[in-house]
Amino acid sequence: MKEWITGRNAVYEILSLRSREFFRFYVSRNAEKKGRLAEILDLAAKRKIPANFIDRGQLDRIDENHQGLALEVSGFHYSDWQDIETRSEASGRPLFVLFLDLIQNPQNFGTLIRTAAAAGMHGVVIPTARSAGVTPAVVHASVGATEHIPIVQMNLSQGMKLLHDAGGWIVGLEGGAEATDIDPKRLGGKLGIVVGSEGEGLRRLTRQDCDELVRLPMIGEIESLNAAVAGSIVIYLSVLNHDRSNKRE
Amino acid sequence: MKEWITGRNAVYEILSLRSREFFRFYVSRNAEKKGRLAEILDLAAKRKIPANFIDRGQLDRIDENHQGLALEVSGFHYSDWQDIETRSEASGRPLFVLFLDLIQNPQNFGTLIRTAAAAGMHGVVIPTARSAGVTPAVVHASVGATEHIPIVQMNLSQGMKLLHDAGGWIVGLEGGAEATDIDPKRLGGKLGIVVGSEGEGLRRLTRQDCDELVRLPMIGEIESLNAAVAGSIVIYLSVLNHDRSNKRE
Repeated sequence: MKEWITGRNAVYEILSLRSREFFRFYVSRNAEKKGRLAEILDLAAKRKIPANFIDRGQLDRIDENHQGLALEVSGFHYSDWQDIETRSEASGRPLFVLFLDLIQNPQNFGTLIRTAAAAGMHGVVIPTARSAGVTPAVVHASVGATEHIPIVQMNLSQGMKLLHDAGGWIVGLEGGAEATDIDPKRLGGKLGIVVGSEGEGLRRLTRQDCDELVRLPMIGEIESLNAAVAGSIVIYLSVLNHDRSNKRE
Repeated sequence: MKEWITGRNAVYEILSLRSREFFRFYVSRNAEKKGRLAEILDLAAKRKIPANFIDRGQLDRIDENHQGLALEVSGFHYSDWQDIETRSEASGRPLFVLFLDLIQNPQNFGTLIRTAAAAGMHGVVIPTARSAGVTPAVVHASVGATEHIPIVQMNLSQGMKLLHDAGGWIVGLEGGAEATDIDPKRLGGKLGIVVGSEGEGLRRLTRQDCDELVRLPMIGEIESLNAAVAGSIVIYLSVLNHDRSNKRE
């Protein structure tokens, strides 16, 4: 299935990595051809993709947040669990996996993928049921990070079992009374981090599959953090308190 | 100046804290009057603010993301530096201040204020020049956290000097080559954290006023994190590695 990717960084990453097949390429006639857009036009020329210069109004019909361009590409390619294990082995670092339980908001979804990729996590697992999948809005919000990290769509419980079988420890992020204050020292080794949706948190079954439910301290009179922020904090608490911050070979 | 606040959490916080004067109150005729909205209607009745039930289309003209309601209120009330010091004294914890250098994106701006309030920071300082200020979009994105923490609009350099005069240490978050890898152990005591805009980073003069420029490790092939995520990570690295996680008295 073909889809339209918009957003300068997302389009740049896809062109640069050749992570998709390319079809039509539209650029706003009035956009200034400098900076990132100039780089994109150079790269597209190198990839032999002709740019069609059109009116901004035509781009608006593809996506309101187009940032002056739209690239038609093949659909997102999901990975499987084996790809995550392979990536961990290649990195020489213990398995480090993000599980997303029904994150519906594309902005939060994309932001979490961006953080996971930046933190050198080996993959992201999203559920098959009721889940939006990696839509173009998610690709855009991730500024193209979706093309950099294996994303696996599978039964979340099965994914968590595979990590457990590999000897992993799984922490779920929760605001509720069942959770205990997070201890960064306990975020080492083979680790899974589970993040739920902003409104609903984790599903009951997902919660049961976690080894530990943790919460971030809320010191002010605020009930919770943005879900993508909370998940990103836990990811980096692990990176900075353990041996994950060594660059990949 | 009057303005329209939308978003259920933002409206709830404002009604609950009486942080503004109230004027007109519009609710979508077709919204289900349960959950958070039921709580808001109860609270509005208690505050003697009559709800006007109108068509969704009329709300759309106020704000596309209204979430079924809009409350007309007086403009945002900025604090001054003294309020930040007073709050630190009242909390019994060392000064902990967020400086935002030209964050333009209302979503990132609101998210950072939400994290700062949740982390028990004593205030947020934003520049007077070229800065958007606390608009209704920022209030909405912060889910009302703007009403919970002093926000001061002043020359950023002056604000940083006031923190220095009080014996504070200021770290600026930067991706550039000047920055060194962040060390969570060095985020204790009286602390200022400076976050710049996603595209441009910190202004040159702001950078010069920092005692230290730090970066978060980028382990994967990703150049940077979302600005609100990066700032939030640094805030919580300080909270969790130092004595900030004690609840306020």
